[in-house]
Amino acid sequence: MTITVPGPTLGVVGGGQLGRMLAEAAAPLGVEVIVLDPTPDCPAAPVARDQIVGDFDDPDAISRLAERTDALTYEIELADPDYLADAGAAADVPVHPTPETLRTIQDKFAEKEMLSEAGIPVPEYRRVDSVADLEAAVEEFGAVMLKARHGGYDGRGNVPVRSVGEAEDAIREVGSVDDPDAVAETFVDFEREVSVIGVQGDGEVRTFPVGENVHEEEILRETVVPARTTEAVKERAQAVARDVLDALDGRGVFGIELFETREGEILVNEIAPRPHNSGHWSIEGAITSQFEQHARAVLGWPLGSTRQRAPTVSANILGTVDETKPATLAGVERVLEREGANLHWYGKDDVRPLRKMGHVTATGEEGRRPSTDALDDLLESTRELRDSLTFQ
Amino acid sequence: MTITVPGPTLGVVGGGQLGRMLAEAAAPLGVEVIVLDPTPDCPAAPVARDQIVGDFDDPDAISRLAERTDALTYEIELADPDYLADAGAAADVPVHPTPETLRTIQDKFAEKEMLSEAGIPVPEYRRVDSVADLEAAVEEFGAVMLKARHGGYDGRGNVPVRSVGEAEDAIREVGSVDDPDAVAETFVDFEREVSVIGVQGDGEVRTFPVGENVHEEEILRETVVPARTTEAVKERAQAVARDVLDALDGRGVFGIELFETREGEILVNEIAPRPHNSGHWSIEGAITSQFEQHARAVLGWPLGSTRQRAPTVSANILGTVDETKPATLAGVERVLEREGANLHWYGKDDVRPLRKMGHVTATGEEGRRPSTDALDDLLESTRELRDSLTFQ
Repeated sequence: MTITVPGPTLGVVGGGQLGRMLAEAAAPLGVEVIVLDPTPDCPAAPVARDQIVGDFDDPDAISRLAERTDALTYEIELADPDYLADAGAAADVPVHPTPETLRTIQDKFAEKEMLSEAGIPVPEYRRVDSVADLEAAVEEFGAVMLKARHGGYDGRGNVPVRSVGEAEDAIREVGSVDDPDAVAETFVDFEREVSVIGVQGDGEVRTFPVGENVHEEEILRETVVPARTTEAVKERAQAVARDVLDALDGRGVFGIELFETREGEILVNEIAPRPHNSGHWSIEGAITSQFEQHARAVLGWPLGSTRQRAPTVSANILGTVDETKPATLAGVERVLEREGANLHWYGKDDVRPLRKMGHVTATGEEGRRPSTDALDDLLESTRELRDSLTFQ
Repeated sequence: MTITVPGPTLGVVGGGQLGRMLAEAAAPLGVEVIVLDPTPDCPAAPVARDQIVGDFDDPDAISRLAERTDALTYEIELADPDYLADAGAAADVPVHPTPETLRTIQDKFAEKEMLSEAGIPVPEYRRVDSVADLEAAVEEFGAVMLKARHGGYDGRGNVPVRSVGEAEDAIREVGSVDDPDAVAETFVDFEREVSVIGVQGDGEVRTFPVGENVHEEEILRETVVPARTTEAVKERAQAVARDVLDALDGRGVFGIELFETREGEILVNEIAPRPHNSGHWSIEGAITSQFEQHARAVLGWPLGSTRQRAPTVSANILGTVDETKPATLAGVERVLEREGANLHWYGKDDVRPLRKMGHVTATGEEGRRPSTDALDDLLESTRELRDSLTFQ
């Protein structure tokens, strides 16, 4: 098969920062992107060919997207898998990752069942359909993290439960007492959180180097690549990530969040069926970015190299404000002046508390295997740089 | 001064591939681009905020561009300097590089006069206002390259003249016998053509590593960075480039084309007041691309690092067709499959003979000082890769 450009047009449900960076990566390949997003002039709009203004679960809007494009994907788990499947079938347009995979991942219980059945290590978990289920899980495990089965992300819908007495209140936080629709997981006593960005192409699979993720209030703050852990742990994380990719259907990039336990074991925490915040480092830090990989994979094109070019840290610029207001980020000169630092602004009109507004990536010296000390320094200096930015 | 994002909006006269890659580089910085171009849906249009459809010398269109933007620049020497100056003044918007610099560079004789007066080495030249002027130049120098003073680019408007008898015909090729409006240069017996991409910011100047340019029929085919020449020649090229930047007014990127003579001297051939084809390698090969540098410089922002990340070759994809037709490039899978190779497609609807349609960049191993042999191999393999692409 020969591949020609101008290439196919890619339809993307969601036009946030992931859609924006996907459009930025696709353009040089001769691939145009049309996004579907409910917010007029969404972050991806200025760099994409076009935006269809519509909801992620509006079947008519998804059909219009399918009719105008040659392949469908999504950058947000809120995309409706049934409508995606219907629109793809009606317009004879492939959907990747498959709607079935999206449906599984949208349900935290189904996701864990799928992984367990594939023999992939996950924290112990119990389905919670009643207060009694949760109480039983707390008694069994001592303490659990209660997670909404559907609709949770960035830690929203996650509630720690440390005693039976907290069960009912916890359930009210994630759902209703009548229908909790939740899952309870054992607390993992982890050494660190790591992730592997994997990409599944047409008969080939690649993984990026293991990243180390620093969370606070369950929101990703920084990613350090390579992770500051042992080679054995990194190899184990890669092996688990490849098993996860084998278990998933459909082409595309998957963000695979992992726990490294105190014993050096790897457990799968969550999977995102799309480019992932912990893979933003790859834009500057790897030969091929996760966004270019996603475009290639969804189109069935050959995948690019995941080789790392330099030690890299990415740091999220979150909304450090108390209330919503028009977004103006000050102090950007410090990022511009720093050797090897790059700003990625997502183009959101308003800043909200803890909203992801952009990120800073800093790369170290090319072609050197960095020491842990060098990575510590790179993390610290990048964090300070990011922290020096303020919303006016 | 603190720099804030969302940043200023940049108005660009010209929406070809340079405007496209400028818009791609500006977006992550929170800088939106509006281009002015006569071709509806020009290459930059899909990735820019907006396009004003109009001619480069349409004063009304340039005024409308100035009114909608915070800073003006241009990606094509055909931009009209007077209208740029007027529009900038009327809308109180800075224009960079300055219209005066553009006016000088648009006139090959004025450009050489400016360089000579600044003590910068250029090939010997004579102003040609009549057939007799050209005959005298041929008698003086033996053989000359006759160049149209205005409007020539990519070798168009350049005619070699080897005897007095060829003078009149040569003048008819570049202009009219009554008003030749030309300049005659000695043929330079050069060892190789090199270039330095320089960037002039607000009180700071930076230069990228020296690139080596392979031309054929006076059109750039490949650029190899670093140039395969001695350290002494590279230092000399850098010094000359810095002198050129000192002599030029206004902020922005300048492409400075140089001859390395057989004696190892450096002469300035031509200057482009904009990002230059021989700087495309910097997108993957340098910490900061020439396009990001241009945006930073025009806005008066701090410049980025010009450090090279890896040995790099860029190879132009030219229109290898006999006549104009809709553009479809085949064989792209070979670029996608090659480790460290990147495609840049410019999004032009039609392919024409020798038209610049895109380029391929290939990077070698990071952090190694490459041997000449390694650069030879990278050039050869990148050229073969590019040559394997065909227009259907």
